Amino acid sequence: MKLKVVGVLAYDSITSEFGTKRNIFGGSATYFAISSSYLSNNVRITGAIGKDFNRDDLDILSSRGINIDGVETLDLNTFKWEGKYEINAPNEAITLSNSIIKGEPNVLESYKPILYSKNENKSESYSLFLANADPEHQLDLINQMDKRAKLIGLDTMDFWINNSAESVKRLFPNVDVIIINENEAKLITNENSLRNCINKIQSLGAERIVIKLGNYGLVYASNSTRFFLPAVLVEQVKDPTGAGDSFAGGFMGYLSTVENLTEEEFKEACIYGSVMASFCVEEFGLERLLTLNDSEIENRKNLLINQIKY
Amino acid sequence: MKLKVVGVLAYDSITSEFGTKRNIFGGSATYFAISSSYLSNNVRITGAIGKDFNRDDLDILSSRGINIDGVETLDLNTFKWEGKYEINAPNEAITLSNSIIKGEPNVLESYKPILYSKNENKSESYSLFLANADPEHQLDLINQMDKRAKLIGLDTMDFWINNSAESVKRLFPNVDVIIINENEAKLITNENSLRNCINKIQSLGAERIVIKLGNYGLVYASNSTRFFLPAVLVEQVKDPTGAGDSFAGGFMGYLSTVENLTEEEFKEACIYGSVMASFCVEEFGLERLLTLNDSEIENRKNLLINQIKY
Repeated sequence: MKLKVVGVLAYDSITSEFGTKRNIFGGSATYFAISSSYLSNNVRITGAIGKDFNRDDLDILSSRGINIDGVETLDLNTFKWEGKYEINAPNEAITLSNSIIKGEPNVLESYKPILYSKNENKSESYSLFLANADPEHQLDLINQMDKRAKLIGLDTMDFWINNSAESVKRLFPNVDVIIINENEAKLITNENSLRNCINKIQSLGAERIVIKLGNYGLVYASNSTRFFLPAVLVEQVKDPTGAGDSFAGGFMGYLSTVENLTEEEFKEACIYGSVMASFCVEEFGLERLLTLNDSEIENRKNLLINQIKY
Repeated sequence: MKLKVVGVLAYDSITSEFGTKRNIFGGSATYFAISSSYLSNNVRITGAIGKDFNRDDLDILSSRGINIDGVETLDLNTFKWEGKYEINAPNEAITLSNSIIKGEPNVLESYKPILYSKNENKSESYSLFLANADPEHQLDLINQMDKRAKLIGLDTMDFWINNSAESVKRLFPNVDVIIINENEAKLITNENSLRNCINKIQSLGAERIVIKLGNYGLVYASNSTRFFLPAVLVEQVKDPTGAGDSFAGGFMGYLSTVENLTEEEFKEACIYGSVMASFCVEEFGLERLLTLNDSEIENRKNLLINQIKY
């Protein structure tokens, strides 16, 4: 089944204890698409790039078999993000600047994502991931659906919760699984314990939730299941950028290949998501994600399963 | 088999988002002994109290079947600790003051723990937990052993790592399992990733390690095993004080009843430790630990197992 992701393609400048990399290819949709491309051979990416965008970077997506018909080039600049990670807080990205803060004209100012790209077969089944974006745009994408996606995943971030909490909450009953991090879950619920976060997000109409705990793992919850999965114990976290989107890519990528979406399959998806995120953080940017092979993924999956075996 | 704990009996004044409690009975040995008393009916506590100590609090220990022959009363005051927990950092106790900082004469100034209490049968097998204390005292206790304990567990804290790191490290090859929290593991190894912490602590001669991750769970490691166990998802963490010692109590308490210490039994011990810690944090001080029954413990164990089932 087709897997569509709508989100951001960006250039990131990142500092961690392991150094600084400037203007490397990233963005939520990019990490998601590349990660999911290891589980699905039918990934489509939708987003906007600027006239400054390096065409070689589009070739990176194509070389992973990702359909880029939905990538629009606007007469502005590609969105740029600058961030850092403190040595003792690898799970918290600190934004130093971005195109909006700097007042640099960029594609996110005027871009309105369109769900179907030209010539796309609208009658085909698909899964959809709405990567972090303006919740009004996310809702608009849901309203553009000719045929309801088989599975819709949703991400958001603190900026939208702080500024448009009601719009974010309105999305919850309209998607199938919310994939957010711990801080976002606490912020939107005003609760401190994970258990209360889960209960409150469910009471807002969300059927399934994944709360990502960075290097501690995740909690998955549905009406019938609570699954607390630790993270893979990696040697070092060089750059956590994109880990959440890589998780979502592995998670949705796996589910897009599954006929019958049982609770066991959602747990399996959590495993694949964690495996993909664990690779992502090992090197800066997309470096590690772009050099993977299937047996490395299976080996790491076995490592994780062994690590939680009771 | 007999389970001996050597550590502190104290009065704590604790502030969390749920309020403040002043001068409540606590201390590392107390939490350990009460927690382990649900798994073993042969727990002995060793430590010092002052002339100000409330005898009713000794009765609390006795009422749980804990042997208090090793509790010495000195002509000084009982050790007191004042601490708080910030709303977003439940895993980090902040010391506001204690008897030593205040310059109040207290039992820890002159107390040297003695391994065997009067009339104790020295030929009997036993397990031993060395709760957080001056590492020189901990080493001295090991040297007092007539017969090597079947299993020795060790805790320490940042204060000793900062001030006596070499003494702490000298203990590692002399005990069987080191039970420390994440910050302590990072501090003693100067490493940031859990995996590197484990490797470095093992290279210091430690056979088994538990790194406690607070509300995220723990990692257990031996030469052959890595086991990453999430915490029980509790509704609220009212007071994390004693959670680590309650974990150790459940962990060592279970193991003290086991004939053959296989890796599977160490994993089972992690489960019991986590269960006991999860109760501890639900109320201030010892409140929740003192009202437990066996079926509550088994139910929570099942909850935890269900939560990690893959």
